[in-house]
Amino acid sequence: MNGYHLAVVGATGAVGTKMIEMLEEANFPIASVKFLASKRSAGKVLSFKNQSVMVEETTPDAFEGVHIALFSAGGSISKQFAKEAVKRGAVVIDNTSAFRMDPTVPLVVPEVNEAALANHQGIIANPNCSTIQMMVALEPIRKQYGLNRIIVSTYQAVSGAGVSALEEMKEQAKALLVGKTEVAANILPCGADEKHFPIAFNALPQIDLFAEGGYTFEEWKMVNETKKIMADDTIKVSATCVRIPVVSGHSESIYLEINEEQATVADIKALLVDAPGVVLEDEPAEQRYPTPLAAVGKKATFVGRIRQDIDVKNGFHMWVVSDNLLKGAAWNSVQIAESLHRLNLIQS
Amino acid sequence: MNGYHLAVVGATGAVGTKMIEMLEEANFPIASVKFLASKRSAGKVLSFKNQSVMVEETTPDAFEGVHIALFSAGGSISKQFAKEAVKRGAVVIDNTSAFRMDPTVPLVVPEVNEAALANHQGIIANPNCSTIQMMVALEPIRKQYGLNRIIVSTYQAVSGAGVSALEEMKEQAKALLVGKTEVAANILPCGADEKHFPIAFNALPQIDLFAEGGYTFEEWKMVNETKKIMADDTIKVSATCVRIPVVSGHSESIYLEINEEQATVADIKALLVDAPGVVLEDEPAEQRYPTPLAAVGKKATFVGRIRQDIDVKNGFHMWVVSDNLLKGAAWNSVQIAESLHRLNLIQS
Repeated sequence: MNGYHLAVVGATGAVGTKMIEMLEEANFPIASVKFLASKRSAGKVLSFKNQSVMVEETTPDAFEGVHIALFSAGGSISKQFAKEAVKRGAVVIDNTSAFRMDPTVPLVVPEVNEAALANHQGIIANPNCSTIQMMVALEPIRKQYGLNRIIVSTYQAVSGAGVSALEEMKEQAKALLVGKTEVAANILPCGADEKHFPIAFNALPQIDLFAEGGYTFEEWKMVNETKKIMADDTIKVSATCVRIPVVSGHSESIYLEINEEQATVADIKALLVDAPGVVLEDEPAEQRYPTPLAAVGKKATFVGRIRQDIDVKNGFHMWVVSDNLLKGAAWNSVQIAESLHRLNLIQS
Repeated sequence: MNGYHLAVVGATGAVGTKMIEMLEEANFPIASVKFLASKRSAGKVLSFKNQSVMVEETTPDAFEGVHIALFSAGGSISKQFAKEAVKRGAVVIDNTSAFRMDPTVPLVVPEVNEAALANHQGIIANPNCSTIQMMVALEPIRKQYGLNRIIVSTYQAVSGAGVSALEEMKEQAKALLVGKTEVAANILPCGADEKHFPIAFNALPQIDLFAEGGYTFEEWKMVNETKKIMADDTIKVSATCVRIPVVSGHSESIYLEINEEQATVADIKALLVDAPGVVLEDEPAEQRYPTPLAAVGKKATFVGRIRQDIDVKNGFHMWVVSDNLLKGAAWNSVQIAESLHRLNLIQS
């Protein structure tokens, strides 16, 4: 064969746009691309490797002949079309939460659990953005010492909520900068919820809807997905997810407890310095640590500010940053496709 | 007597300006005010209760006849002039870190340890902004159940770094909003450090200089001041302090462990609903939780998102927000003055 036929569903969205960019540099042969979106976006013209590609409406038949379909158009679109794509022979890599906790669906961060791809039944789920970067940073430590506990507080960027949320933040920021005291808010913290609050020059401790125990779905995603990806239900995980006025780049303040009393910060750094997908940026004396603005456009997960807890010997703190649209979404999805290709797991 | 003679040192700064506002509504008699600042600011005219007051240069003799001197002009000014003021009979309420850990200096959050004022020797320290709001939120819980552990991640506003840092953030935001990709940074994360990074649409995991164990001084302040204010060296405290692009209002994601396995979220809420200085804003079903934008200009500490840890029975998470210039600085200082007056601890 001379390459795969690809489809990107949600091609005009914040993540879809980045998926196309990542596919342009993907490490597998591409015979053709098909860009799918809503009826409203059909007819728009996008570019792929300097060729014009017209956006088509997503329909079941659009997946005829497609080998790999990357979905990022919301959970309801995935629920509606992913199985249609599989029925027509495609492998679906789904960036929504629709199938993540389905026991028949592998939930994959290639640096962590690529082996889980072997058992796929057509759909592979891409984890939540906040979960992915935490897994990349923590897996080398878990493998060496075992992980007993994670407490994470996130500082999440607005691009994770889509293009319109970004536009709204910019309008709000402009208004506040010229001295307006009231600004309109129609999207964040969560388009599906009732009340909306400004994000510009603010921090919103709600991402997604509220669920059991006063935790949001975003927080539960971090808890449940961590246990599935690390294949260990005994790790204690709690999360507090917060949106802050950053364009792209999620940051996380992570506390972890390992099953080892003798490890030092130097040991942890030694594990991370050559870890796959990790860039260690941790030189306090030189003010070297990750920031979201510096991480934008990069595929790596940046780790810094590694410290031993002041009182708990097996406890460590760290600061983990990655581009939520890349490693948190588009790049991890394309990376899964690269793994499927390398492992010969795509029907063609 | 017909009231106290007051001095505000650093009257033209971000906190000084708020101190003047708070003094206008203070609950004790004021005979006169004196606004002190650097030589550069001397001659500026400020307003107090609709009267014009000319700013004077800070000198030792400026404190002659002053009963209460509120300092907020940086640690070196406090070190230079606080004892001069005390020598001349003033009680100093110092908002810098200069004397906070001095064992002869009470470090006071009136809702928590007002009694410590009784032993003052002329100088009383106002705690770090991030510490104060955490103390207000946690003291009612500590009193009832005992506190075993605190892990806090902060989301700190730019006004804590002063007026010029705020101006810089606004200039950076304006430049980024019109599409510039490089912006100048000369102040944050820390004026006294070598490298500077943009704060607009960014998050900086450094506040103050780096110190022992990879922790910043800001983080050590939260650790050490907590133990001093709660008068308990056994509480385990670790902090990660992060600056985010918010004008005013510090937010904190706090994990706490109490010495009691049977307490519920309802029990914690019952402790906080009538706690001094606390406003409980915790109705997930109605999207009711604190945000910095909503807390600006208010004296209270707002607490929400109270949840039991998913795995640890005596562990709880919460989200605590307060105006860092008010309860975190100016209001707490004026509140200390009110306490001193009520407890008859001011020489006059």
